[in-house]
Amino acid sequence: MERISFQTDPSRYRHWRLSIEGAVATLAMDVDEAGGLAEGYELKLNSYDLGVDIELYDAVQRLRFEHPEVKTVVLTSAKDKIFCAGANIRMLAASPHPWKVNFCKFTNETRNGIEDASANSGQTWLAALNGAASGGGYELALACEYVMLIDDRSSVVSLPELPLLGVLPGTGGLTRVTDKRHVRRDIADYFSTRSEGVGGRKAVAWKLVDEAVPRAAWAETVARKAAELAGKSTRTGESQGIVLGPLQHRYVATDIDRPGRSVTITVRGPETEPGTHPGDIDAEFWTLAMTRELDDVILDLRTNEPELGTWILRTAGDADLVLAHDRMLLDNRDNWLVNEILLYLKRTLKRLDVTSRSLIALIEPDSCFAGSLLELALAADRTFQLDEPGVAITVDAMNFGVLPMGNGLSRLQTRFAGDDAHIKAVRERTGEPLEAADADKLGLVTFIPDELDWDDEVRIAVEERASFSPDALTGMEANFRFAGPETMETKIFGRLTAWQNWIFHRPNASGPDGALRSFGTGQRPDFDRKRV
Amino acid sequence: MERISFQTDPSRYRHWRLSIEGAVATLAMDVDEAGGLAEGYELKLNSYDLGVDIELYDAVQRLRFEHPEVKTVVLTSAKDKIFCAGANIRMLAASPHPWKVNFCKFTNETRNGIEDASANSGQTWLAALNGAASGGGYELALACEYVMLIDDRSSVVSLPELPLLGVLPGTGGLTRVTDKRHVRRDIADYFSTRSEGVGGRKAVAWKLVDEAVPRAAWAETVARKAAELAGKSTRTGESQGIVLGPLQHRYVATDIDRPGRSVTITVRGPETEPGTHPGDIDAEFWTLAMTRELDDVILDLRTNEPELGTWILRTAGDADLVLAHDRMLLDNRDNWLVNEILLYLKRTLKRLDVTSRSLIALIEPDSCFAGSLLELALAADRTFQLDEPGVAITVDAMNFGVLPMGNGLSRLQTRFAGDDAHIKAVRERTGEPLEAADADKLGLVTFIPDELDWDDEVRIAVEERASFSPDALTGMEANFRFAGPETMETKIFGRLTAWQNWIFHRPNASGPDGALRSFGTGQRPDFDRKRV
Repeated sequence: MERISFQTDPSRYRHWRLSIEGAVATLAMDVDEAGGLAEGYELKLNSYDLGVDIELYDAVQRLRFEHPEVKTVVLTSAKDKIFCAGANIRMLAASPHPWKVNFCKFTNETRNGIEDASANSGQTWLAALNGAASGGGYELALACEYVMLIDDRSSVVSLPELPLLGVLPGTGGLTRVTDKRHVRRDIADYFSTRSEGVGGRKAVAWKLVDEAVPRAAWAETVARKAAELAGKSTRTGESQGIVLGPLQHRYVATDIDRPGRSVTITVRGPETEPGTHPGDIDAEFWTLAMTRELDDVILDLRTNEPELGTWILRTAGDADLVLAHDRMLLDNRDNWLVNEILLYLKRTLKRLDVTSRSLIALIEPDSCFAGSLLELALAADRTFQLDEPGVAITVDAMNFGVLPMGNGLSRLQTRFAGDDAHIKAVRERTGEPLEAADADKLGLVTFIPDELDWDDEVRIAVEERASFSPDALTGMEANFRFAGPETMETKIFGRLTAWQNWIFHRPNASGPDGALRSFGTGQRPDFDRKRV
Repeated sequence: MERISFQTDPSRYRHWRLSIEGAVATLAMDVDEAGGLAEGYELKLNSYDLGVDIELYDAVQRLRFEHPEVKTVVLTSAKDKIFCAGANIRMLAASPHPWKVNFCKFTNETRNGIEDASANSGQTWLAALNGAASGGGYELALACEYVMLIDDRSSVVSLPELPLLGVLPGTGGLTRVTDKRHVRRDIADYFSTRSEGVGGRKAVAWKLVDEAVPRAAWAETVARKAAELAGKSTRTGESQGIVLGPLQHRYVATDIDRPGRSVTITVRGPETEPGTHPGDIDAEFWTLAMTRELDDVILDLRTNEPELGTWILRTAGDADLVLAHDRMLLDNRDNWLVNEILLYLKRTLKRLDVTSRSLIALIEPDSCFAGSLLELALAADRTFQLDEPGVAITVDAMNFGVLPMGNGLSRLQTRFAGDDAHIKAVRERTGEPLEAADADKLGLVTFIPDELDWDDEVRIAVEERASFSPDALTGMEANFRFAGPETMETKIFGRLTAWQNWIFHRPNASGPDGALRSFGTGQRPDFDRKRV
């Protein structure tokens, strides 16, 4: 398969139609059957593959940045009697294990991003299910704040993965039905084994949808609800959006060491002082431009370079300019665009947290691990800081809750297990360049070799990492990065995803006679009946 | 392999030495190398297999019931310079996947039981590591409240699973180092990749152990700490223990339907009124005798009958007598033995929650799903209650927090997603027999067929369950049963275990060239380097 690109724009969409009328955007799924990323499957019934979801992700992002006037996003289908049939099964069945897992991760992140828009952006997503929503289709609806289902004899919601495919709904469905929608666990169990799904009043009674609407009243009821949700928005509707133009690749560079199975990601700091007024912020504002590039690099490497198991995180530039940009943003948090930039940086850092690659941060003479960029080091599995005068890190207000992890805590809170006294001690050093001895004492870095030892220590750490079982590293990192409490989001990437990965890898799903591969062939799957 | 029995007693121990002096018990690991459950491996260096852990579980139980005078349990080794090398690697490498997973589950439950004793029984476990504690050996220590390590040049703690075996520490290690001991995540990462381990002051500085003690002062320091912990115990030390004699098989019966891949577990209620004084309670007291039998049945079926994928839970007897026994216990909770019985029932119900079998409860004319036994129905994935006069369930105080799940919530709280108003409405019906319509309205049961439909509905549900992928069912149940918040315990069975199961199943661990199977052969493992 060719290298997958995550860059697109509405003029190139093959699978979605975006239209905006006043405060309400309508994003209609209209999947091009012939538009699959790979050969061998047709995207029937609004089923999706990664290509469809890349466009969805792009739409979610642009709605937030380019359309501040939009307060409600109606997610619906342009096809008759079908909302969305979920991930394409032939695509899944033909995909190698790492592809399936990476695909699910990205789709999960996009759905979490939809929830982030509803919760924090004043852009509330409304699912208008004008036809059947099955599997990933219903899970997409679950990511919306309000779910309307057309009430006819055929339109149902369903999670048929278990009975039909021998796998789990892989994009948060099991977690969201109970933890978000509070469907009772026994009903959820029954629903998830009933491939024919549930519609109408029963779907409402079971809390699977919020409202069932007769066809005759459909358009009007959806429009009324969209307007009602828009009325509650925090967005003023009077701001001007910015255009997310093509990526410039100014701030984030990668350097691949293929024999060493590692890649160095260098994030450059800003080159100039930020303006003083939020009106000065545009798409070229460093924090936004850098975040877009970093986001793209993460997605690109995860998808296209699975053998580069170690990511070495570096920064280069002027820490004071990073801190100045941070301050500019934090001083203007009530501005819608500033809010969006901070939320986007938060989401991008969360991508790092769930990335199944070892992350090693290197703090060196030209580094600028300060404030927002210090989060890169705090997201890393290990940090090396050169013990030489002038090599420093700096904490600022960005490090104390503005950019929470999926568990709802800052990376410092997670790191120090909620030890408030220690976190306060760190906070008291805000703005002060912390050289190695200080950073080490405060527990902010892992190792502080001096110049004599630096090269060897770092080289050994990277080489050693590359020698370990990639699977065991994935499992270990998925545990240590999420110390402490769990949220719906971390449960989706932890409990749910780990079980799904296991199921995906088992012959009962993916073997030649497994349910995923025998679906549609007329053959019944042949299961190993032993419970594990 | 022969059917594994979980019944033993100290006179039959091959691997442990239990001695008691006043308020302090010493449980010393002294594994018989030739005493493995199966052929093909020697239990060198105090490594363990399921047989060793069955004895440990027995010791934990007997200490609680038979030795109320014991306030501190010192867990140590009878061998020189080695505490415990963890699970036997050759045993693991030779074991089929379901065996490995079930083995880890049981060992995890035993370690959780140790923590329960320290937290709730006034019997505090102290790990006295008189030699190296590696892998599962260190994880066993992590289950204790206080960890002492002898400070010499060779005694270290380590988690070498990842670097040496390409798997995770499987008994809670990754969760406990960060979430219980608050080891910083980057240090935990480094520690878990460093097969040679950490000893002495560094182990203390990194919070891996609480104290490093020079050999000369070892015995005295351990004894002093044991006495100190005993001094804080809630146990009076003046009570008389009861003897846990051989199981009587009076209250719990199983009926296997092998072609249907299901088993019916029938729990009989008590036959007589309980006494009125806690002094009347002995090992034959219904709640205790029933719990012991149920515990044994769960362990037996999980280990020996992996193809019986559906457990049908029935009760038979007089609900009023169940409620009378509940009342007797709840009225005497300050009695040490009553406390132990309730804690044991709690732990046994938790075993059900993490059992990878579909649980279907049937409420029929002769049922006694009341109070403590109602928890069986609340633990089930689905419940059927016959809609006929006189067929009822009853809630009592047992259902409102006395028997919490691993997530710290009652099964009703988990079921109703913490909807306090609804839980209050259920509570108001305490003691009242709830027939099908009422139970359904209160959301306590899933289906209420009448006599006409009962047989068909139940049969179809059981048959259908048997037709699904056993793996997908395991994953689904592991998600739905733990709706809501997570705790260290649920994280161990969710996030950690699911990742470990996945890793266990991957060729990088268990394939012919995987790390687990090539360990000790002199061959380096051959890894698929793709990160997933």
